[in-house]
Amino acid sequence: MEINGVPIDDTYAEAFPTWISRIIITAVTEDWAYRAAVEATGFATSAIGCPCEAGIEGILAPDETPDGRPGISILICASKKKLKEQVVERLAECVLTSATTAVFDGLPDAEEKIPVKLHFFGDGYEYKKEVGGRNCWVIPIMEGEYVGEEEFGIVKGVAGGNFFVMGENQMAALMGAQAAVDAISAVCGVITSFPGGVVASGSKVGSNKYKFMPASTNEKYCPTLREKVPDSKIPAGVKAVYEIVIDGLDEECVAGAMAAGINAAVMVPGVRFISAGNFGGNLGPFKFELSRIL
Amino acid sequence: MEINGVPIDDTYAEAFPTWISRIIITAVTEDWAYRAAVEATGFATSAIGCPCEAGIEGILAPDETPDGRPGISILICASKKKLKEQVVERLAECVLTSATTAVFDGLPDAEEKIPVKLHFFGDGYEYKKEVGGRNCWVIPIMEGEYVGEEEFGIVKGVAGGNFFVMGENQMAALMGAQAAVDAISAVCGVITSFPGGVVASGSKVGSNKYKFMPASTNEKYCPTLREKVPDSKIPAGVKAVYEIVIDGLDEECVAGAMAAGINAAVMVPGVRFISAGNFGGNLGPFKFELSRIL
Amino acid sequence: MEINGVPIDDTYAEAFPTWISRIIITAVTEDWAYRAAVEATGFATSAIGCPCEAGIEGILAPDETPDGRPGISILICASKKKLKEQVVERLAECVLTSATTAVFDGLPDAEEKIPVKLHFFGDGYEYKKEVGGRNCWVIPIMEGEYVGEEEFGIVKGVAGGNFFVMGENQMAALMGAQAAVDAISAVCGVITSFPGGVVASGSKVGSNKYKFMPASTNEKYCPTLREKVPDSKIPAGVKAVYEIVIDGLDEECVAGAMAAGINAAVMVPGVRFISAGNFGGNLGPFKFELSRIL
Amino acid sequence: MEINGVPIDDTYAEAFPTWISRIIITAVTEDWAYRAAVEATGFATSAIGCPCEAGIEGILAPDETPDGRPGISILICASKKKLKEQVVERLAECVLTSATTAVFDGLPDAEEKIPVKLHFFGDGYEYKKEVGGRNCWVIPIMEGEYVGEEEFGIVKGVAGGNFFVMGENQMAALMGAQAAVDAISAVCGVITSFPGGVVASGSKVGSNKYKFMPASTNEKYCPTLREKVPDSKIPAGVKAVYEIVIDGLDEECVAGAMAAGINAAVMVPGVRFISAGNFGGNLGPFKFELSRIL
Repeated sequence: MEINGVPIDDTYAEAFPTWISRIIITAVTEDWAYRAAVEATGFATSAIGCPCEAGIEGILAPDETPDGRPGISILICASKKKLKEQVVERLAECVLTSATTAVFDGLPDAEEKIPVKLHFFGDGYEYKKEVGGRNCWVIPIMEGEYVGEEEFGIVKGVAGGNFFVMGENQMAALMGAQAAVDAISAVCGVITSFPGGVVASGSKVGSNKYKFMPASTNEKYCPTLREKVPDSKIPAGVKAVYEIVIDGLDEECVAGAMAAGINAAVMVPGVRFISAGNFGGNLGPFKFELSRIL
Repeated sequence: MEINGVPIDDTYAEAFPTWISRIIITAVTEDWAYRAAVEATGFATSAIGCPCEAGIEGILAPDETPDGRPGISILICASKKKLKEQVVERLAECVLTSATTAVFDGLPDAEEKIPVKLHFFGDGYEYKKEVGGRNCWVIPIMEGEYVGEEEFGIVKGVAGGNFFVMGENQMAALMGAQAAVDAISAVCGVITSFPGGVVASGSKVGSNKYKFMPASTNEKYCPTLREKVPDSKIPAGVKAVYEIVIDGLDEECVAGAMAAGINAAVMVPGVRFISAGNFGGNLGPFKFELSRIL
Repeated sequence: MEINGVPIDDTYAEAFPTWISRIIITAVTEDWAYRAAVEATGFATSAIGCPCEAGIEGILAPDETPDGRPGISILICASKKKLKEQVVERLAECVLTSATTAVFDGLPDAEEKIPVKLHFFGDGYEYKKEVGGRNCWVIPIMEGEYVGEEEFGIVKGVAGGNFFVMGENQMAALMGAQAAVDAISAVCGVITSFPGGVVASGSKVGSNKYKFMPASTNEKYCPTLREKVPDSKIPAGVKAVYEIVIDGLDEECVAGAMAAGINAAVMVPGVRFISAGNFGGNLGPFKFELSRIL
Repeated sequence: MEINGVPIDDTYAEAFPTWISRIIITAVTEDWAYRAAVEATGFATSAIGCPCEAGIEGILAPDETPDGRPGISILICASKKKLKEQVVERLAECVLTSATTAVFDGLPDAEEKIPVKLHFFGDGYEYKKEVGGRNCWVIPIMEGEYVGEEEFGIVKGVAGGNFFVMGENQMAALMGAQAAVDAISAVCGVITSFPGGVVASGSKVGSNKYKFMPASTNEKYCPTLREKVPDSKIPAGVKAVYEIVIDGLDEECVAGAMAAGINAAVMVPGVRFISAGNFGGNLGPFKFELSRIL
């Protein structure tokens, strides 16, 4: 299969279940909502070494938010137990502290809920209030009053949807990856949690040489090792590979994001090959065959 | 004392020691260095609930970095033990994974060093190389090769330098705070770790009502509680307070940042009063008297 | 009429016809499309002193553009004669010169067209090519090849849709204006051509004192002149006024943008009054009564 | 000559005199100063088709501006006659209209001055005031009061300093150009007036085929025409060329910017060759030999 002259590998991305919370952060302006969202979703690239995976899902116009203010929607992804702890900490430290923010549940129809009881911060001065049909707590703070919901829906979603953008040199692959991230940013229900949405150093599970390492470089996908390792997965003429990793609310939106990203990446001159990462299909229940989703 | 007609409270900011690492992240362009820096310094507003405090110190021109590429300098602040763990995790998850980044020690003259051994990620394919006079490891990765130093100087610096911007309404106080942060961003050696550099919800230690809370709203500084609590610190006519919290490499640069920030804040129409936070002087060894530093 | 406690003046905005061209700029990434769009829409706030009015209408995902790349849609507004000249100059100087850009007609169904013959720049090396169903010219340039359509639909739209955001102080009014612009940015078919979308210095036609001036400060709307001029339009308690000026493809989208902007502005604390500007209804054919559109 | 393995052409950039005004725009925050600066320097890439050349020189901390607020310094470049007209129009339409801005002369020591009489906009309500040692006019406007100087120093500077970044493919050349612009942004006294600082379509004077064209594609520097035109300047292996054009206050700062940009560009993988543009030395009085400035 080829798109715009770029071969698409006959393979699939393997992905795993994750629990996801979607949080709507509103503020007086989009800028201020964005600042809170960036802080709240930082240090959250990969569950391997970060306490969760998180990212910005999208921008919400005032008429799309419960309180009629500009908003940003973020997704936080982790195991169920860690998810609650992380949502509490990130809202408490990064959003409650942020100027003019309010917080609302972005999955009000989810069957499962987690409690996020920030109102104890009010030390008894807090009170309840309905805002846009949502049951909120109001907490007196230095800037005035913070408003937020304290129950957040969570759903079992998909983590680790992915594809590889391979280029004839590093800059071509990187711009291909950036074009992919631009395209994915318009897709609802997904995030790309790595810096700029792009992974420069994909890993394999464990390490052959250093037994204490939970993960190490995926030498089969390292262009500089192409001649040095057996079974290199680097096609002739490829000098750099970037991985786009996608977490999303369900299989459909992850597949849609993968398709949007790949279709954008192949438009970039110097992108030579598209593939995807899997672990042989034994681990993750979700398989995204490139030929099917495109 | 008054500046530009705004009264400056006759008080001081009380601050505490912290260990600090300064890391220089370079990349192919400033944009890409910035993306890595933002991710690496996220979820790091306050040591109360975040694993560390971190922020962007400044932008470095290519002729200011060891490898001659655009760079961003970040500071990571924590206890000595946590600092090592956080630098390792944040570099491993947020910078090594980020496109085209390299990492260098920003405190090469510090007496104390922490090891940050990312090279094990190379699974035996890594090798040593000198870059710009620095001893680096090169790790083969999917995009090509990652380059980074593995020893980082740490110094005992200052956390919690602060001042309060009080306004006749919320927007005046917020813009005063933002002007302060703009001014501080030009000061070397400091960060403002909260979202957009501004704290909306300053806290007191513990809670009067909820004994399980390590911190709670500082009701004396809550404008909506001015008539409800004894000893409110809110001057007449003040409707909103923002706190600027500053961490820095030493007392001098924190004092300089406080002065730059306050001088900028008082230029904003509607800013009515400047004060600072302390705990009576019993806890922290650093005292920044506003009348002295201005 | 009141929204969120803010009185809405019982008045209308008066607007005028203008010719409009909508241009789709695509590039290898959204960043590069944005850079071209910003340059092409600069020095274009008001037809009084600028050669045209122009602004960014919105961001287009790759699957919304003719060539499958990230895009930005801009509107350029002027008299029919000036419009052709400005579209030619701005595309030639600001987009053809910009990295990786291509240009497509954003109003392909318009009955009237203007020719924009950039292909002569190719000095005979140019050639025709179909891209995404559009008839384009390809021009060899230093970066490779530029691709662009050379016929652009134009429609008779609306210029000067407007409303005033009045605040109890300057910062409240400004943040109200910014929230309005955030909301309008999500509305299709419109631009706000002033810096940041906000006008700080609305004008009246002519000048009472300086006869050579085509326009001068609108003293009736100057808060500092409230006690000095007869018939001041500044309500008691208002200290600052910002105007949001909207150009759009038709009356419906301008009315929608006005409503979205006003609904967002009134959510900002310290915004005290909303009004709109007109010239008594004698000049412009379009009247947007605030009570009707909200 | 080679830097980082990249050959530097044994040639020179040829540049021309231009008159330059440096304007300091301050505002309540850096964001608002930036918005005004972007609008005021738009549609100003090349004097061939734009009314002037203009760009952002740098960011100024509050302690570097006359009124103690965050600032942006811009340069506007044109013939002496056009310069006055353009400074007047751009300040009147793009800065006086912009929220919270004030304007100051950035070349107070220049011998020649141009008058920029915006105060007539005040229709008699304007008055004089000293701000930071500068003689300013205060004009009552809708947001409150605008403050600005009305005499601006101008100097005879240098336009058209330049170099070419050539790459093994388009994305490598583009990222090389962007790294160059990042480096130049830290140099005082210069601007890069094209979108993102980069020129994709360098031109030659006139046209061989279309006699009515004042400029046309420089076919000798078009990679796709390498085999089709005699005397192509494209080295073997080069697939894309970007030009960085620099205007500056004097020869020294233009040379410094060229050196900073070239040194940064050659660090980008896939950049293959650096050259510069001249017209044989017959036209411009300034010659920047690459071997001398580096």
